[in-house]
Amino acid sequence: MSSNSNYKAGRHFLQIPGPSNVPDSVLRAMAKPVIDHRGPEFPALTQSILEKLKPVFNTQSNVFIYPASGTGGWECALLNCLSPGDKVLAFETGHFATLWKDVAEKLGLHILWMPGDWRHGINPMLVQEKLTEDSNYEIKAVLAVHTETSTGVTSRIGEIRQAMDAAKHPALFMVDAVSSLACTEYQHDDWGVDVTVSASQKGLMLPPGLSFNAVSELALERAAENQGMHSYWRWDAMLEHNQRGYFPYTPSTNLLYGLEEALNLLHREGLDNVYARHSRFAAATRAALAGWELENVCLNPAEFCNSTTAVMMPEGYDADDLREDILSRFDMSLGTGLGRLKGLVFRIGHLGDFNELMLMGTLSGVEMGLKLGDVPHRTGGVQQAMDALIGS
Amino acid sequence: MSSNSNYKAGRHFLQIPGPSNVPDSVLRAMAKPVIDHRGPEFPALTQSILEKLKPVFNTQSNVFIYPASGTGGWECALLNCLSPGDKVLAFETGHFATLWKDVAEKLGLHILWMPGDWRHGINPMLVQEKLTEDSNYEIKAVLAVHTETSTGVTSRIGEIRQAMDAAKHPALFMVDAVSSLACTEYQHDDWGVDVTVSASQKGLMLPPGLSFNAVSELALERAAENQGMHSYWRWDAMLEHNQRGYFPYTPSTNLLYGLEEALNLLHREGLDNVYARHSRFAAATRAALAGWELENVCLNPAEFCNSTTAVMMPEGYDADDLREDILSRFDMSLGTGLGRLKGLVFRIGHLGDFNELMLMGTLSGVEMGLKLGDVPHRTGGVQQAMDALIGS
Repeated sequence: MSSNSNYKAGRHFLQIPGPSNVPDSVLRAMAKPVIDHRGPEFPALTQSILEKLKPVFNTQSNVFIYPASGTGGWECALLNCLSPGDKVLAFETGHFATLWKDVAEKLGLHILWMPGDWRHGINPMLVQEKLTEDSNYEIKAVLAVHTETSTGVTSRIGEIRQAMDAAKHPALFMVDAVSSLACTEYQHDDWGVDVTVSASQKGLMLPPGLSFNAVSELALERAAENQGMHSYWRWDAMLEHNQRGYFPYTPSTNLLYGLEEALNLLHREGLDNVYARHSRFAAATRAALAGWELENVCLNPAEFCNSTTAVMMPEGYDADDLREDILSRFDMSLGTGLGRLKGLVFRIGHLGDFNELMLMGTLSGVEMGLKLGDVPHRTGGVQQAMDALIGS
Repeated sequence: MSSNSNYKAGRHFLQIPGPSNVPDSVLRAMAKPVIDHRGPEFPALTQSILEKLKPVFNTQSNVFIYPASGTGGWECALLNCLSPGDKVLAFETGHFATLWKDVAEKLGLHILWMPGDWRHGINPMLVQEKLTEDSNYEIKAVLAVHTETSTGVTSRIGEIRQAMDAAKHPALFMVDAVSSLACTEYQHDDWGVDVTVSASQKGLMLPPGLSFNAVSELALERAAENQGMHSYWRWDAMLEHNQRGYFPYTPSTNLLYGLEEALNLLHREGLDNVYARHSRFAAATRAALAGWELENVCLNPAEFCNSTTAVMMPEGYDADDLREDILSRFDMSLGTGLGRLKGLVFRIGHLGDFNELMLMGTLSGVEMGLKLGDVPHRTGGVQQAMDALIGS
C-alpha cells in the first residue's frame, strides 16, 4: 500500500445502523482455516450454532441459515410460501418495507399496500380492519418490518399478531427482524410469527453475508404444499441437510465460525443484558436529541427503537453535507437518509458491539459536526446523554 | 475451549477439491473492520476487485459478484436468461452437472439430458449433432461444466463453442467454472461463453460465500428481454449499482476484502504461473497414481484436470473407509465420491494455495493410508511424483 496523507489514526466509528462494529474475537474466529464442509467435524459446528441461535429468536422451530444478504432472506420467505398472483398485505413504514414490497412485486405477488408517513409503525387496528374485510381469505400473508432501519421506528409485532387473531384470519405472518434481532427482545414463537427474516450484520455483530429464516410449523406446511419454481432457497432441502448437521450446498464456513463466536459473546453477556444495554444507549441518544432540540423521526414513544435513531435535520440543511463533514473531520460514518428521507435525516446506529464510551464518542462527533456546520441546534446534547447514562 | 485428547499438532491438510486452503494474508484481510457499504471508500474496493477479476475470466464483459454459494450462481444464470418451459441442452459429466440440471428442472426448464459415464467430458460432436437437429431453435441454452469436481474431468469448452458455431445455433452458452477458475486458463471471451458461473472457494483461494456470473453482451440482452419472476439475482440491478461502485443490497464486505487480497496474490504470481503450477501438480499426482497402479477416473488425457484427481479404488475396497483412516491417522481431508461414485473413488484436491511440499505431504498421506488399509497397490507413487516434480 502506498503512503496516504489522509491517514487517520485510531478506530473508525462505524455508526451506521448496520453493518455494525464486529468484535475482534469474531474477526479472529473468521480467520480460522476452512474445514471440509462434508467432513465429520462440521455437524458439531452446525448444531452448536443452531442451538445458540434459537434463543435469540425465542423459537423452538427451525432456523435456516443462507449464504446471502438479508434481501435474499426476504425472497426466501416469499418464494417458499407463496405463488405468483397470491395477495399479501404490506405496510409502508419506511424504505426497507418498500424494498421488500418491491421484491414481492417482482416475484409476481399482488400487494395490498398501506401507505404510511415513515414516522409511525404499523397500526394494529388497520391490520385487523383489512383482514376482517378480506372475508374470502384472499390475503395469504401479512408482511411487517419490525425495526425500520431507515426511520428508527419499531412496529409492535405482538399487537399485530393479536389483531390478526382478532380477525380470525389464516394469513401467514412474515416479519423482517434484520435490524432488531439481538438488539430488542424478539419473540418468534410467542408472537406467532410464521417467518422471521434476519441477517448477520446488525445485532449479531458479524460482517454481512448470512441471512436467516426462522420458520413456524405452519409455514413449513404451506411451503411443502407450494410447488414454487425456485431452488436455492428451498426450506425442505435445508431442513433435511441441517438435521444431519450439513447444508444442501457449500455454506459460508468462515462466517459460520464468526457466528458461533458472536453467539458465544451474546450468551456470555446474557440476552436480557444485551437488550437492556441497547435500550439504555437508545434512551441516551434520545436524551442527546432533546438536548440539541433536534427532532426524532419516530413520533410514537411506544415505537422507539433500540438499534438506531433517525434525526430530522433543521429545514434547509442537508443531512448528507453534515455526514460528509463528520466523516472527513472525525472519521465517523453515520447512516444516510434513504428513499423519501434522503438529505432530510441522518441516522445514528447504536447497535451491536457497542459501549458507553463508544456512544459518547459518537454523540460528541455529532455535536461537534452540528457546531462546525452551523446547523441550528442547542449545545448540551452530549451532556444530557451522559446524565441519562449515569442516571442523574 | 476444553482440553481435547484428540488434539492434532500441525496444520490440517485440506485436500478436498475445494474449499481449498486459504492463504494467511487472505484470512487476515477478512479480519479487517467492516466499512460502510454506502460510504465513499467502498467504490474503490469494488472497482479494484472488478478490474483484477476480469483477467481471471479473460473477459472484457461484466462480472457480477453475489453473496451466495456457487449453487446460487447456477440459479442466477438460469433465472436471468431463461423462462419456465424453455429447453436447455445439458450433459451428464458427473455429480455437479447433474445437480445443475436438477436446479434447472426445479426452475421449470425442459432439459434435453445427454447421459454420460462420468469418465469423459462433453463430446463436442454430440453438441453439434443435437444443435443441428434442433432446426427450430427450441434449445435456448447449452449448459456445460468445465471441470467436473466429482470426477476430475475437464470438458473442452473451446471445442464445444466451435461445435455450436458449426451448427449455426443461437443458443446461449453457459459454463460452470467453479472448480477450474484460476486453476486452468479460462477464456470467457475467446470461447464465446455467454455466462460463466464460478465461486470463491476453489482457485480463488477464499472461504466459500461469494458467487460469480461473468456475462456476455448477448446474455445481458436476453436478460433484459426476459421478465422472469425473481429479484435477488437480477443482473440489471447489479450492473446499475456496480457502475457506481456499490451493490444493490448489502454485499459480503469482509469476503470482498479477502477477494481483493487473493486477486493481488494471483496477479503477483502471474496467472500463467498459477496455471503452470496447477498443471505441474496435477501431472505429479497422475505420476503417483501410475506408481501406485491405481486408475484415474478421467480416461481421456485431453480432459485431465488441473484442480483435482479422482482415484478409482480397487474393486471391493471402500474409498470412504480409506478416507476416514487417513483423516484420523494423518489429519488430512480427501474428497469423498459423490453420487454414483460414492465409495468407489476418493478425490485428491491439488488446487489453490498449494506448493510442492504440501503436495508431497498429501501424496505421502495417501500412500501410507493405502498401506495401512491393506488396499492393493504398488509402493512408489510418492517416489514417481517427486521424479515428476524435479523432472528426472
